[in-house]
Amino acid sequence: MHIASLLARAARLHPTNAAIAGGGRDQSYAAFQARASRLAAHLCSRGLVPGERVSVLSWNVPEFLECYFAGAAAGLVVNPLNVRLSALEQVEVVRDCGARHLVAQASFAPLVAEILALGAPLEGVTWIGGAPAVSVPSTEYERALAEAPAAFPPCEPAGDAPAHLYYTSGTTGRAKGVILTHRNVVTHALGAIAELGLSERDTWAHVAPLFHLADAWATFAITWAGGRHVWLERFEARAALDLLERERVTITNLIPTMLNLMVADETAAGRDWSALRALLSGGAPIAPEVVRRIVATFRCEYVQTYGMTETSPYLTLSLLKEHLKQLPEAEQLRYRAKTGRPFATVELCVVGDDGREVAPDERTVGEIRVRGETVTPGYWKRPEETAAAFEDGWLKTGDLAVVDREGYVTIVDRKKDMIITGGEKVYSTEVEHALYAHPAVLEAAVFGTPDPVWGEQVEAAVVLRAGAAASAEELVEHCRAHLAHYKAPRAIRFLAELPRTGSGKIAKHGLRRKPSTPPAPGFC
Amino acid sequence: MHIASLLARAARLHPTNAAIAGGGRDQSYAAFQARASRLAAHLCSRGLVPGERVSVLSWNVPEFLECYFAGAAAGLVVNPLNVRLSALEQVEVVRDCGARHLVAQASFAPLVAEILALGAPLEGVTWIGGAPAVSVPSTEYERALAEAPAAFPPCEPAGDAPAHLYYTSGTTGRAKGVILTHRNVVTHALGAIAELGLSERDTWAHVAPLFHLADAWATFAITWAGGRHVWLERFEARAALDLLERERVTITNLIPTMLNLMVADETAAGRDWSALRALLSGGAPIAPEVVRRIVATFRCEYVQTYGMTETSPYLTLSLLKEHLKQLPEAEQLRYRAKTGRPFATVELCVVGDDGREVAPDERTVGEIRVRGETVTPGYWKRPEETAAAFEDGWLKTGDLAVVDREGYVTIVDRKKDMIITGGEKVYSTEVEHALYAHPAVLEAAVFGTPDPVWGEQVEAAVVLRAGAAASAEELVEHCRAHLAHYKAPRAIRFLAELPRTGSGKIAKHGLRRKPSTPPAPGFC
Repeated sequence: MHIASLLARAARLHPTNAAIAGGGRDQSYAAFQARASRLAAHLCSRGLVPGERVSVLSWNVPEFLECYFAGAAAGLVVNPLNVRLSALEQVEVVRDCGARHLVAQASFAPLVAEILALGAPLEGVTWIGGAPAVSVPSTEYERALAEAPAAFPPCEPAGDAPAHLYYTSGTTGRAKGVILTHRNVVTHALGAIAELGLSERDTWAHVAPLFHLADAWATFAITWAGGRHVWLERFEARAALDLLERERVTITNLIPTMLNLMVADETAAGRDWSALRALLSGGAPIAPEVVRRIVATFRCEYVQTYGMTETSPYLTLSLLKEHLKQLPEAEQLRYRAKTGRPFATVELCVVGDDGREVAPDERTVGEIRVRGETVTPGYWKRPEETAAAFEDGWLKTGDLAVVDREGYVTIVDRKKDMIITGGEKVYSTEVEHALYAHPAVLEAAVFGTPDPVWGEQVEAAVVLRAGAAASAEELVEHCRAHLAHYKAPRAIRFLAELPRTGSGKIAKHGLRRKPSTPPAPGFC
Repeated sequence: MHIASLLARAARLHPTNAAIAGGGRDQSYAAFQARASRLAAHLCSRGLVPGERVSVLSWNVPEFLECYFAGAAAGLVVNPLNVRLSALEQVEVVRDCGARHLVAQASFAPLVAEILALGAPLEGVTWIGGAPAVSVPSTEYERALAEAPAAFPPCEPAGDAPAHLYYTSGTTGRAKGVILTHRNVVTHALGAIAELGLSERDTWAHVAPLFHLADAWATFAITWAGGRHVWLERFEARAALDLLERERVTITNLIPTMLNLMVADETAAGRDWSALRALLSGGAPIAPEVVRRIVATFRCEYVQTYGMTETSPYLTLSLLKEHLKQLPEAEQLRYRAKTGRPFATVELCVVGDDGREVAPDERTVGEIRVRGETVTPGYWKRPEETAAAFEDGWLKTGDLAVVDREGYVTIVDRKKDMIITGGEKVYSTEVEHALYAHPAVLEAAVFGTPDPVWGEQVEAAVVLRAGAAASAEELVEHCRAHLAHYKAPRAIRFLAELPRTGSGKIAKHGLRRKPSTPPAPGFC
């Protein structure tokens, strides 16, 4: 099966089901399929041939979902651009993947003009929601659909044909395009349906960016299941809460920052959450106490997730095994807050420096390695980086973790973020957990900085809660009370917010470079 | 992923879960994996190399489950033999697939001796439950496990490597070996988990033969989910009811004849069915009234299934779409009794003589064609038969069906069983339904026999209910009251039972040849 066949199935089996709802854009699966098919025909009419890349630059709108399926039906490789990147970074991506065509929201016209001026190889644009003039031929989206032939015989790409090209945030060096094949995407979707029990009863909220896999995977799984897609163009906590309540959303995945802001909203707990059955989040460690607060607020199941673009994305979910559901609530929360146990389609092991699996003692640290049909075949035109990413067929994730007796892993650090101070290993997550336990701390990131005596020293960046106060000395003391002294930060910077990658992960490389700034007014 | 990785996952994630239970053979997933691994090592110690075939001849015992996973771990192609075939037929199969080793129940020693005497190329036997002497070297199963090394590095077959070789019942000509690849089997298992919501809370009863896919597929899906396997060595209605009740079975698939006999058992309705959530059956049409009786007896969901060995097996399930669950009960039963809508991983269409899809009017008949990752790559060493089975990448099932507006198909006949009498098409299923509506009829099969005037004439074979009576004339009159006259049988034979294939399907080719026999005493 290939990606376009999932929408085709939904349109045949559930033609009248609401595919896309809300925002005055209610659309059945029959209509969804018809529009995606016309968009595919339009893209082909621009001279694009199977195997070519098409870039998409958009916040969350229903047209984005159509692009994913239309690209597949046209046999194209869809390259979603991270809207937060600069024009120069966008050009680097577009040039690397060689896209000749772009589908973009009209509101990005200035950015697109800049990209073109910088020499991106684009030869045409299809504009969503407008028709701004630009230096290459362009068409307005709805007009493009109207003018495209209704009947379009979809391509039938092989399972191992590239379907998507996501460029990683590029925390190190040049951005790399992660290839996901049709089989990668389809297998992940089926795995997610099996793991999460997705069905046509489900409504998924596209709140996290659709240009990132944290949300994009649901495009395929929810469509396959015949469920309902609702969306929020750009995140804002109150609007997200409104959407989830109004549209009776049953399940979604939120980036931790989003979830934090939503839980902190005073209206959150008092709403009608009777439809909501599960909230997923991940990409950052979470404390059991925070999980308790989420569950208390939304009165639904919480699932910690861990994944990578390279793995379509899920690698683990903190779903509870049956016998763990018999544990006292506090123990259950402890498991729900772990990184999780392997996703259905993933083989996962944690390998120590000696190349052998670590003991499941929740103490011995190793690197997570994975394989399976949801793992990328590699990076776009980067045979060396691809070869370096794998060992004996296993993808080296670069994430360090411990494993417990139940097979749940807990990430302790990115391999490259691990700190060695005076010969001792310090895993930043452990120190961050200690900081999070302080009532004044909203967010914390721990990282190493060069030190002439110790090799590296432990440093922290902290965002304080609104109205709360704490001095650097107080936080260091707090850490020393909870941790071995060498693990406590030697320096603490107070920031108004933490720098993040396009996908919402904390960008520690940015912190290492960033000079300390005084806390914003009102923070302390 | 490959088949052995599913058991490896279960053993890692659910080591203490009961994998196999009942019959004094309780076994955890850790033990299941350890035993399968030793069996794999034993098979390799017999000189078998990856890619070779190993045959299995056994009724339903836990060792059969071990064979499936051990064969996969050793990189072998598992060839389950239909225990009901004659020695000559077995030799034909073993010779065709070239198996050098056999794992067999000791109770089959006489049959195995015959097979060897007839010149099967077998060079060794591993005996389950005994150690009879035979003309080639043999080992007793438990001794083989005890002597095998505990550590065995499993093979890592590619997704498209053959995993299983099932020989079709061979209703036409020579038996053909259907190749199923690791990807076929693994994809089907994940699809089944998604479709049926299988989890570690489930207990599956292996009641239908494990040498046939009607039951064998659950070996992989239930293991993947970490569920519990219980088994019945040979079917007997009362014993099956006892097993389902005693072991608190949650879900299983039964061949229609089994289900009929179980429903007919006077103790069936009065039992504790609180654990049972779904019964699957298929391979023969079913009337809504019969579905109602099954549901009333077992107080669980009924799912009609349709599949083929060539498709791992499921092609459709009669699971209800959400909006159909709002219909009155009688309407719901009508849908549950249909052949069903496409299985998650299957693309299915019904194609008329003109090569185009038929209208979804529930009247126009066409042939079911399918494709997807659960479809066989073809027949073992039969390039011509393989080529003939496909058209444009679609497998031609040979089953004729109609489609309704909801996308549910209903099989009306095997293509080769369709009767043409006086130029009119008669689909046997329709006539059988009319016969089943008569209170005296337990089972009925309709088929065509040559007729000099009409080309073919409609004939029926009928098994009457115990204690019931009906004459041929009465049944013909009954059919005429329900059908166009040309569809009513011209002749009716009364049989004590209908001939069946190894998988339990009615063997109509046998009926066409079989002389009429008088009903057994007590039947009329």
